[in-house]
Amino acid sequence: MISKLAKSISPFYVMEVLERAQQLERKGINIVHLEIGEPDHNTDSQICKKAVSSIKSGDTKYTHSLGVAELREELSLFYKKKYNLSVCPQNVIITTGSSPALFLCFASILDPGDEIILTDPHYACYPQIIKIAGGVAKFVRIYEQEDFQIDVSRLKKLISKKTKAILINSPSNPTGMLVNNDVMEQLAELRIPIISDEIYHGLVYEGKEQSILEFTESAIVVSGFSKLYSMTGWRLGYMIVPDPYVRPIQKLQQNLFISANSFVQSSGIEALRLSDNKIKNIVGKYKKRRDIMVTGLRDLGFDIKKVPDGAFYVFINTKKINTNSYELAFDILEKSHVALTPGIDFGSGGEGYLRFSYANSVENIKEGIARLKKYIS
Amino acid sequence: MISKLAKSISPFYVMEVLERAQQLERKGINIVHLEIGEPDHNTDSQICKKAVSSIKSGDTKYTHSLGVAELREELSLFYKKKYNLSVCPQNVIITTGSSPALFLCFASILDPGDEIILTDPHYACYPQIIKIAGGVAKFVRIYEQEDFQIDVSRLKKLISKKTKAILINSPSNPTGMLVNNDVMEQLAELRIPIISDEIYHGLVYEGKEQSILEFTESAIVVSGFSKLYSMTGWRLGYMIVPDPYVRPIQKLQQNLFISANSFVQSSGIEALRLSDNKIKNIVGKYKKRRDIMVTGLRDLGFDIKKVPDGAFYVFINTKKINTNSYELAFDILEKSHVALTPGIDFGSGGEGYLRFSYANSVENIKEGIARLKKYIS
Repeated sequence: MISKLAKSISPFYVMEVLERAQQLERKGINIVHLEIGEPDHNTDSQICKKAVSSIKSGDTKYTHSLGVAELREELSLFYKKKYNLSVCPQNVIITTGSSPALFLCFASILDPGDEIILTDPHYACYPQIIKIAGGVAKFVRIYEQEDFQIDVSRLKKLISKKTKAILINSPSNPTGMLVNNDVMEQLAELRIPIISDEIYHGLVYEGKEQSILEFTESAIVVSGFSKLYSMTGWRLGYMIVPDPYVRPIQKLQQNLFISANSFVQSSGIEALRLSDNKIKNIVGKYKKRRDIMVTGLRDLGFDIKKVPDGAFYVFINTKKINTNSYELAFDILEKSHVALTPGIDFGSGGEGYLRFSYANSVENIKEGIARLKKYIS
Repeated sequence: MISKLAKSISPFYVMEVLERAQQLERKGINIVHLEIGEPDHNTDSQICKKAVSSIKSGDTKYTHSLGVAELREELSLFYKKKYNLSVCPQNVIITTGSSPALFLCFASILDPGDEIILTDPHYACYPQIIKIAGGVAKFVRIYEQEDFQIDVSRLKKLISKKTKAILINSPSNPTGMLVNNDVMEQLAELRIPIISDEIYHGLVYEGKEQSILEFTESAIVVSGFSKLYSMTGWRLGYMIVPDPYVRPIQKLQQNLFISANSFVQSSGIEALRLSDNKIKNIVGKYKKRRDIMVTGLRDLGFDIKKVPDGAFYVFINTKKINTNSYELAFDILEKSHVALTPGIDFGSGGEGYLRFSYANSVENIKEGIARLKKYIS
């Protein structure tokens, strides 16, 4: 009665951590949440105001299935300004978040059994979205000792006739690392379509993030407004695709989603127009938090070889405490009331690690570190 | 490079009609739009106000993957009040529209090659969403001479080991007909899970629509806020599923969509709380339009055996003018500037028909009929 596909989708352990944390909270216990990959601050009022005026003006109908023209044009301008890239508005497709964009992307390229190569560890949903689209995820291990960079010679060994794309994510969830430029270049030279999840672009504190489109035109960019603009609950994403993909993805979108929310799309235009100063403030705030988190964890004796460049995660090797990340996360939660994400959620390559999110206040980060100090001693 | 799946998705001819209509409009030609399945009036201000206050209060974060508890509870109350059904909030899942709800539903029950039985004609997207989920659509023809009712003995011949569900839609797009109670009963007796698309519930002018849950508990209801509440651009839908489906669908939702829009979900609560008077006004308006449309079409000589019960469509046999509905729709558009949906969009059983939507003003409906009168003579 339930499909094999649906049965085979693995749950996220972090949800179990979160649910247990909420249970403890209902008992009156204070929990420090360092498990959640969601900005803690509110959406900028300028964006909210645009949503309000759009709703009031009756901007509440289906839109063009590829998205509102003005938002697609604004994204084109944004890519020119930020990356000096010429992206044609016709190649921009607006979606209800970057997750459905990934699904549309996979469904447009994968026949049953076709393969996508991605890193291990990786964002938890990737292999599952690939599976739902009928494909197979192939993993190239990345290692802390190699700064979580992709070893392209290792990746090459996974390439087969069934390989339809390579999926990258820079800066990455869960490692926080940017993919190095020379790796991007080497990947582009493989002449295999690259799907680049750039959802954490903008949240970079060391170096500069580069779009895959700076290296090859034969790539699909998937991104959205959730992280940098703190618009998680709005559900607004987009993809930039080469010409041949536009029509197939449009047909999939028409059938599955009709269009993204109308007034949320209007608000997206406003997000892209936020002043450089506002963006600088957001980024500055995260950088400060990251530095406090990294310093705190180093003080606890954790060896952080390379400070993560972006996103809002630090991925910490905790094998010396417990090689089982699920057990460890629950033990810390029960004894010290700090919620963390077990590394196993990100693939077997993440086992023995915990992901610390610093999308939380400085005060909470400090409190979390203090509680961990007690836990360890 | 493009998957066989994506290539095999057929386009909607109505989109070609719409695009050509817009082209003519850019030339300054006035077009009467009777092709679009979208309410023409704005969302009620009470719903809009709730959205505005939710945005202002920072209700802009991810929600629970199954949806906001208060909306699920309000839907439970709504089903008690409207259908006298006891629906547990735990069985309600909130989605970004009824289209993704259908996909989640199919993905949760279909293994590759599994079958869903549905009517022909049918809503254009059904077979495609089934295909994207790896399934196969099997069609039972319905006929105007039988008031577009399902002949269950005919349907039974399609049942095989691969049949995973029967999909119904009452009132129906494109026919506007309710599924009769005795048909519902007979379908329920087949003991095959029924997926009931009840998106047009509330928009019923003759008789009373019944939820499939009044006949069997082994059913999935898919519905949403787009039609009755004129919330198409908001993207808010839901499904009511038996216990064993909740967790599998939740896992699919977490991976594909994370959650529906937070403040749109809050607004949905307000929609369900609209006064009976407001709903009566909306329904009364459509009834008036339907009657004008039906009278007008009958005056033109079209034989409408049974006046459609609900939704906002009249499905008209136009074979005496042209058996090719695509050709006819374009000819009417070019010569008379009335946009209509060719019946072929709804399956081969719809060929020779045109769908007239009365989700438009009385004035426009009258003007459309007047133009058609000239076209015919």
